[in-house]
Amino acid sequence: MLKTTIRIIERPKLRDPVLIEGLPGIGFVANIAALHLIKSLRAKKFIEIRSPFFQNLAILTEKGGIRFPVNELYYYKGEGMPHDLMILYGNTQALTTYGQYELCGQILDVAREFGCKSVFCMGGLRSERMTLTPELYCAATDLETLNKALEGGIKKIRGRIFGAAGLLIGLAKLRKMHGLCLLAETPGSYPDSVAAKSALEGLCGILGLKVDLERLEQSAESTRRVLESFKEWKIRERPKSLRPV
Amino acid sequence: MLKTTIRIIERPKLRDPVLIEGLPGIGFVANIAALHLIKSLRAKKFIEIRSPFFQNLAILTEKGGIRFPVNELYYYKGEGMPHDLMILYGNTQALTTYGQYELCGQILDVAREFGCKSVFCMGGLRSERMTLTPELYCAATDLETLNKALEGGIKKIRGRIFGAAGLLIGLAKLRKMHGLCLLAETPGSYPDSVAAKSALEGLCGILGLKVDLERLEQSAESTRRVLESFKEWKIRERPKSLRPV
Amino acid sequence: MLKTTIRIIERPKLRDPVLIEGLPGIGFVANIAALHLIKSLRAKKFIEIRSPFFQNLAILTEKGGIRFPVNELYYYKGEGMPHDLMILYGNTQALTTYGQYELCGQILDVAREFGCKSVFCMGGLRSERMTLTPELYCAATDLETLNKALEGGIKKIRGRIFGAAGLLIGLAKLRKMHGLCLLAETPGSYPDSVAAKSALEGLCGILGLKVDLERLEQSAESTRRVLESFKEWKIRERPKSLRPV
Amino acid sequence: MLKTTIRIIERPKLRDPVLIEGLPGIGFVANIAALHLIKSLRAKKFIEIRSPFFQNLAILTEKGGIRFPVNELYYYKGEGMPHDLMILYGNTQALTTYGQYELCGQILDVAREFGCKSVFCMGGLRSERMTLTPELYCAATDLETLNKALEGGIKKIRGRIFGAAGLLIGLAKLRKMHGLCLLAETPGSYPDSVAAKSALEGLCGILGLKVDLERLEQSAESTRRVLESFKEWKIRERPKSLRPV
Repeated sequence: MLKTTIRIIERPKLRDPVLIEGLPGIGFVANIAALHLIKSLRAKKFIEIRSPFFQNLAILTEKGGIRFPVNELYYYKGEGMPHDLMILYGNTQALTTYGQYELCGQILDVAREFGCKSVFCMGGLRSERMTLTPELYCAATDLETLNKALEGGIKKIRGRIFGAAGLLIGLAKLRKMHGLCLLAETPGSYPDSVAAKSALEGLCGILGLKVDLERLEQSAESTRRVLESFKEWKIRERPKSLRPV
Repeated sequence: MLKTTIRIIERPKLRDPVLIEGLPGIGFVANIAALHLIKSLRAKKFIEIRSPFFQNLAILTEKGGIRFPVNELYYYKGEGMPHDLMILYGNTQALTTYGQYELCGQILDVAREFGCKSVFCMGGLRSERMTLTPELYCAATDLETLNKALEGGIKKIRGRIFGAAGLLIGLAKLRKMHGLCLLAETPGSYPDSVAAKSALEGLCGILGLKVDLERLEQSAESTRRVLESFKEWKIRERPKSLRPV
Repeated sequence: MLKTTIRIIERPKLRDPVLIEGLPGIGFVANIAALHLIKSLRAKKFIEIRSPFFQNLAILTEKGGIRFPVNELYYYKGEGMPHDLMILYGNTQALTTYGQYELCGQILDVAREFGCKSVFCMGGLRSERMTLTPELYCAATDLETLNKALEGGIKKIRGRIFGAAGLLIGLAKLRKMHGLCLLAETPGSYPDSVAAKSALEGLCGILGLKVDLERLEQSAESTRRVLESFKEWKIRERPKSLRPV
Repeated sequence: MLKTTIRIIERPKLRDPVLIEGLPGIGFVANIAALHLIKSLRAKKFIEIRSPFFQNLAILTEKGGIRFPVNELYYYKGEGMPHDLMILYGNTQALTTYGQYELCGQILDVAREFGCKSVFCMGGLRSERMTLTPELYCAATDLETLNKALEGGIKKIRGRIFGAAGLLIGLAKLRKMHGLCLLAETPGSYPDSVAAKSALEGLCGILGLKVDLERLEQSAESTRRVLESFKEWKIRERPKSLRPV
């Protein structure tokens, strides 16, 4: 059976690294936040992940080139910080439940290979209210990790976390890794830079990261453009006058 | 291909053990009954089962921790009883037909490793009537096992048994194990402690088990709480006044 | 990955045997015809086939026992006949397309192990007219096989044959085996003994088989009873007076 | 697990060959164009591809024979041309996403075995206008390949390419092969010989191929006939007078 393939481009030495998940999901909260982190910190791509559980399509770029479903890992070595970062970014999640298990398992395995012991997932929590100061909620694999988040004023939550975020935290626990999930309120129906900012502020507070959040709106804009290109392209500019004989 | 994994925590010596199935199904009859057995008998967890055929989600607990889809086996060594017990409990069944075959096959294989030769499945049988004394029905892999149940006043049934209960009995027969299915009448639309009590009384009668059924309502309550946490959590407490610029 | 398992109960020596397919399909034409052949000829079961691609259920019998999804092969050694018979009978087909490929491939492989070089599939062809003399149609892997059928007055057909019948003929051709498909007109919505008789008459003509077709209606009746037991069983006999407190 | 099987019938020595994709898709553009190429150039079949991810059916021909889902590779050695051709033709694509990945990966692997470094995919681009001169659009894996197409007056496109065409280009890029996609405007709802001619003209221009496009309408007609035979055959000619007792 075909498997998810992990291509390691570079093997950096990382100091007690943490994995930060940033795949597309509700409100694209994690996706926008992770893209902003990568850009702001000039994080470097070191791992490329392909999977037969991704969609079977090619995405055409503005320049006539093609992109393909992919997940990637970027690293950032921060001076004076207790943890280096491994940031998981991509344009898709696995399509099937089985594929999600396979993909997330492999991502955690390669993360551990680089010394990772903690996983931070971000995400959106669907809320009916619109707000400029979305509330932030958390859940953790263990009390110690949970308390770090609670000390920063983040609230506990009950419910379920679907998809890669839920599975990475769950599988991390089985591997005796620490895991924390940060969920920001969002209507969820558009790439939500306000919620992404809230999630990222929470994450930076816990990790002692300093990131300029001013340009985060640009990452939301990029995410919007990728979404646009996912819509089927239609020719409408021409008249319907001609007909084949 | 990823497989269901069986983690053996402890290797107790069991005397002619029987496997009792208690996974979620119609009316949560088996699930409530198994949880009550585990609590009343202080049965001990000795096997943990994870599967890529379970759901891809994490379930958040009231305390901000996380649970993950799992099946577990508990054992109970009863004094003066002809059979020790292996109780299968969990918060999910496998999602696909293929996954069910894989999971149930592995459960029976590990049960046989501990000397198990008989499987008892409980379940709900959808009925339109509401009753405080639900009727109990049975089916068995062989005449000897069937007669034990019939002697206790349990009625024969025709029809089909879907899911783990049906598959465990069917696969047990192929492995030359004995199997008995006990189905209690239930409307099936809520965790039904009345039906669970009926199924458990039938099981205890056949196995010569003495279990206090008074507190069974508490197990139904626990099951209800787990179900609650499976519902998506929504924020409704706040006004919709604020809006992003 | 779990596979279809072929259990060989007996290894008869067969003279140039042909495989006759009789799985459930449109109008249960092949299923009824195969069951009648097995009963009339007192064919003997020699192979049992189980698959993780069958349904995950147990079927309860009238006597309180259980049956399980299965496919079986029966053999018949006919005196003075050019071909011995291998008859494929069962209560189900594989659920998925992939499962069908796996199952049919394995059936052909085991048939070849016993020397089989020809496959005869029966089936129903949906027709809007009701008739006591349903027309019989055919298609074949090669001209020689086709001509045998045409000589007997059976008509050629265009279109598609789905499921096990289509796949067995197609995969037979790839294995350089001969294959013939015999399809009888049927409304298709009930076990159609009239169409089954027509298909079986065609088959007997081609193979030089002598089978009493009088009692074929009984095989249709058995098939109807199996179908009945596949319907979910409901308790309706009692009043709805009692309610839980 | 069952795999796609590649049967190599002949091992021709090919000079810097290019792979031309011609599987059924929108408007059957690639399918018609590839069939025309094969006929005009008298290309020779050298590889046959079967897959458990194809449909499970047999297709009956007008003569009472059967066809089966298949993909095939034909080769053409052209005098005085820089590239020999490998033409991928078939009556189906893989049914599932996973199957598409498996099939397309194997096709590219066998193509590389014969020295192929470039893949040309054709296809239809749904357009609401009817036209005798459908516009041609392109996308490529790299700038060099793209520019060759742009020089010929073909336009760049944005959007997504689904199915085998998108996947072959995407997987080609991962294998460091060159890939070009040529999409012709088509209503897409019937086998469109006008769009197929446009795509083929574009391809011939880029490859320096000389092909008589006059008889292309015949290939569209063949494709129409295959489609016809894919429709379920129904008996309507007879009265509904007779009824079983």
